[in-house]
Amino acid sequence: MLSDIEIAQNCTMLPIGKVAEKAGLLEDELEYYGKYKAKISDDAWKRLKDEPDGKLILVTAINPTPAGEGKTTTTVGLGEALNKMGKNAIIALREPSLGPVFGIKGGAAGGGYAQVVPMEDINLHFTGDMHAIGAANNLLCAMIDNHMQQGNALEIDPRRIIFTRVVDMNDRALRNIIVGMGGSVNGVPREDHYMITVASEVMAILCLATSLSDLKKRCGDILVAYRYDGSPVFARDLKVDGAMCALLKDAIKPNLVQTLDGSPCLMHGGPFANIAHGCNSIVATRLALKLADYTITEAGFGADLGAEKFFDIKCRKAGFKPDCAVIVATIRALKYNGGVPKEELNTENLNALKAGCVNLQKHIENIGKFHVPVVVAINRFPSDTDDEIEFLRHVCEDMGARYSLSEVFTKGADGGIELAQMVMEEADSGKSQFQMLYPDEMPLKEKIETIAREIYGADGVTYSPSAEMSLKAIESLGYGNLPVCMAKTQYSLTDDPKKLGRPTGFNINIRTARVSAGAGFVVCETGKVMTMPGLPRTPSAFNIDVDADGKITGLF
Amino acid sequence: MLSDIEIAQNCTMLPIGKVAEKAGLLEDELEYYGKYKAKISDDAWKRLKDEPDGKLILVTAINPTPAGEGKTTTTVGLGEALNKMGKNAIIALREPSLGPVFGIKGGAAGGGYAQVVPMEDINLHFTGDMHAIGAANNLLCAMIDNHMQQGNALEIDPRRIIFTRVVDMNDRALRNIIVGMGGSVNGVPREDHYMITVASEVMAILCLATSLSDLKKRCGDILVAYRYDGSPVFARDLKVDGAMCALLKDAIKPNLVQTLDGSPCLMHGGPFANIAHGCNSIVATRLALKLADYTITEAGFGADLGAEKFFDIKCRKAGFKPDCAVIVATIRALKYNGGVPKEELNTENLNALKAGCVNLQKHIENIGKFHVPVVVAINRFPSDTDDEIEFLRHVCEDMGARYSLSEVFTKGADGGIELAQMVMEEADSGKSQFQMLYPDEMPLKEKIETIAREIYGADGVTYSPSAEMSLKAIESLGYGNLPVCMAKTQYSLTDDPKKLGRPTGFNINIRTARVSAGAGFVVCETGKVMTMPGLPRTPSAFNIDVDADGKITGLF
Repeated sequence: MLSDIEIAQNCTMLPIGKVAEKAGLLEDELEYYGKYKAKISDDAWKRLKDEPDGKLILVTAINPTPAGEGKTTTTVGLGEALNKMGKNAIIALREPSLGPVFGIKGGAAGGGYAQVVPMEDINLHFTGDMHAIGAANNLLCAMIDNHMQQGNALEIDPRRIIFTRVVDMNDRALRNIIVGMGGSVNGVPREDHYMITVASEVMAILCLATSLSDLKKRCGDILVAYRYDGSPVFARDLKVDGAMCALLKDAIKPNLVQTLDGSPCLMHGGPFANIAHGCNSIVATRLALKLADYTITEAGFGADLGAEKFFDIKCRKAGFKPDCAVIVATIRALKYNGGVPKEELNTENLNALKAGCVNLQKHIENIGKFHVPVVVAINRFPSDTDDEIEFLRHVCEDMGARYSLSEVFTKGADGGIELAQMVMEEADSGKSQFQMLYPDEMPLKEKIETIAREIYGADGVTYSPSAEMSLKAIESLGYGNLPVCMAKTQYSLTDDPKKLGRPTGFNINIRTARVSAGAGFVVCETGKVMTMPGLPRTPSAFNIDVDADGKITGLF
Repeated sequence: MLSDIEIAQNCTMLPIGKVAEKAGLLEDELEYYGKYKAKISDDAWKRLKDEPDGKLILVTAINPTPAGEGKTTTTVGLGEALNKMGKNAIIALREPSLGPVFGIKGGAAGGGYAQVVPMEDINLHFTGDMHAIGAANNLLCAMIDNHMQQGNALEIDPRRIIFTRVVDMNDRALRNIIVGMGGSVNGVPREDHYMITVASEVMAILCLATSLSDLKKRCGDILVAYRYDGSPVFARDLKVDGAMCALLKDAIKPNLVQTLDGSPCLMHGGPFANIAHGCNSIVATRLALKLADYTITEAGFGADLGAEKFFDIKCRKAGFKPDCAVIVATIRALKYNGGVPKEELNTENLNALKAGCVNLQKHIENIGKFHVPVVVAINRFPSDTDDEIEFLRHVCEDMGARYSLSEVFTKGADGGIELAQMVMEEADSGKSQFQMLYPDEMPLKEKIETIAREIYGADGVTYSPSAEMSLKAIESLGYGNLPVCMAKTQYSLTDDPKKLGRPTGFNINIRTARVSAGAGFVVCETGKVMTMPGLPRTPSAFNIDVDADGKITGLF
């Protein structure tokens, strides 16, 4: 089989105007970025906002493993399959970060025969959203340091600046830095930390904002630092919200691209799934809902983090009512959860599958707590045996979840017809009685405990002294009504990445809590979250190249 | 009179496809970036490369003063006037840096009724070139630090890493930083320095590269650090040139925009005019030469720096033969050179004008040394008196330079017809016998001394011990045949910004020398060059805003 980039480069893309036409967009609503990418102007939303919504389908997954699940691939293939069946579907994805492209992870636009194209552009600068977010973030930082340099009228405590610089690059040397060295004309010396751009609160804001005005208000609301007296300083105190928003005026417009078979894909926004909510933008999803009968979207990490935040943060803010959830799993990953080492996943092992499928069962149960019907999509690998497939079918059906194999990686749309049929039936069934896990007015600690018990299966929650203090302070500042954004390992239902399957008898330990006041959630970290990846010993950058005609090789 | 942004926003722009058609480009050669910006694919160059060149006109200026000269404004107006006369002219400009937009300087797309539009886009993210350059630069930096982290096989001395990170922001706190803090998993601690993106060698390379292959070679040639044994380490040793070039594959394509009257403008590249050569890209200028009968371009700072580097670096590398040079001056600026304080420049003062016009005379003489005919363009201000104008006319005509008033700031093309007529006549006259100031094979110190004596009017050159050593080392590394890129104050012909007019009896002191091996020149700094500006007490960012419909205010 060809590599992802070879498949992508062999694809004859439609001019993006044709894709827009299929999606029901007007020529005047497009702003072209080359021949195969476009931004969609706000005029489209203005024209369509009173139309009825189509069905909203979330694609989520079991806890990720090194075996790979293929969530984005399934999302893309599912959308393609629905269109192949003559339905009207739009895929709404996150846009990838440039940084990891040069590290190990590679790109993030699906895989095999279920990809979004132009793959190279999407994984490199795309339409510049990431750069715009970085610039807005770093303008705010420059304004903070400049404020201190120019007399510090706000009395910002240089030890308590919480808003940090970002760059869209895996660059560990920037994790911990000292800025402002070199004497009095060169700034106020202080400790700073770079994050990768997708971890910026500005990214989370862009994804949760519903208009340019809302974006500006949220940028102003960012809590950036504390004064010497302990009171908070906001971006608006630095008079930078207007300029930040000027930098973001195009970034907030959804991007239109296509899948390998020419299905429309809105690819917009991509916040971290740990210290942020890990979903594509509200403006893209809500536009897709107006344009399409079926909108297929996804959320970062497994369902314990991704689906929970999709439901409790994104749907809460946007008023979305999802109609169906797809949980992607692989038999290999479930066997891994059942204790099989990575090297032996290609061997049939029903006992391990039985032991590991408790992870899937827990996620099926969890989605049920939001009252959304579930379809399990098994992303099929050649090593899966008939017995394994049938075993898993029974597991799912016993739980009332529909079950389909997906072969979109190798077959594109044709490999997803059965899945698409099931998803369509569930979404159309009216079964969904979506409700969020907790109400706004629940105290923060109760929200955290509800998530920990109901979703993770924990016995309870413990708090570090600092987290206790922070949560009190956050409530006393008036943010107690915000939803909680859990930052937890994606590999386990617990806060210990090594505990696979469906652990019991554990507590969740909240190490720190802080408010993302602009984005509108309270981040609770259960462990040290890495917000700036490093490059490996042999980075992908070694192999990435471009020939004299501009053809890129070595991306994956 | 309206503000620049008001004039720009009142302009009814042509769809960029129409501008391209006027310029002689084919629809298929365009890559749209919204409705009013496009990149031009390499196909245009392939189609046109064997066509004869049109005339090349450089717009330069006297030494800049706080009074303002209007070089870009004159360049834009001159191009518009030529088109209004029924000629076929293209303007080739540098693209502005985002950073200064939020500081004091404001945008850089001309002014008044001689501007390039869309003004807001051009001054904000434009087509993303600056971000791409920043990403390529910072990828190289991340790869350097990662190499040291992963065992440092190349034995890079962390004290002697000369390639630094960049950001397109005025951010003084990043001038001097310590990176790699926080223990062994977080990098190798060392001193680093951020520059503003336009100061990156990658920007200079992009502007001097003639193809994607040439760009890749030059990226590989960047000298990034020295080993413990003193030997040089190049970007290619880090295997990052291919990935850098992948990031730059679109950035190297020229950008097409328009002036207020719909004249085509290729706006591409914008390297610093001190530690780099301060000219737009070779690929844009050479394409303009194929498309237009008259290509009008400009170079940064005054003629002592900008024109000299345009001739000795850009024309040398590209094989361009300029046909005419325009020196922009204002009567106010010449009076300032004659000792009048800024506050009194609106009062007639023939003595001061006489004293100050020696600066203009020297620049006219200097252009003569390159054997290119000169037209002096006086950017007219309301305070200029008839006697002052006539006095200056005689000064220029006595020197054999043609002389025209320019009123393009207030009148657009109509204010530049006389100037355009003269420039056209000079360019068409065949008078130009362009030659560079020095041959490649001249030793570096002789090159420096030639520039200092011939162009600056210095008695000689002194060298710091470090510069002496560096120049020897540079020659022994085999770079002795490169041209010299002088980094000197733009305000004076000397290396002292306070010495105005036409100073005599001075030496130029070379403080440091280093090679930009990828760009292909040797940078000689005569004083401390600021490569990272700071924000002022009241930054422009305070006033920049965007309304609910995306309309930007407060840019200037």
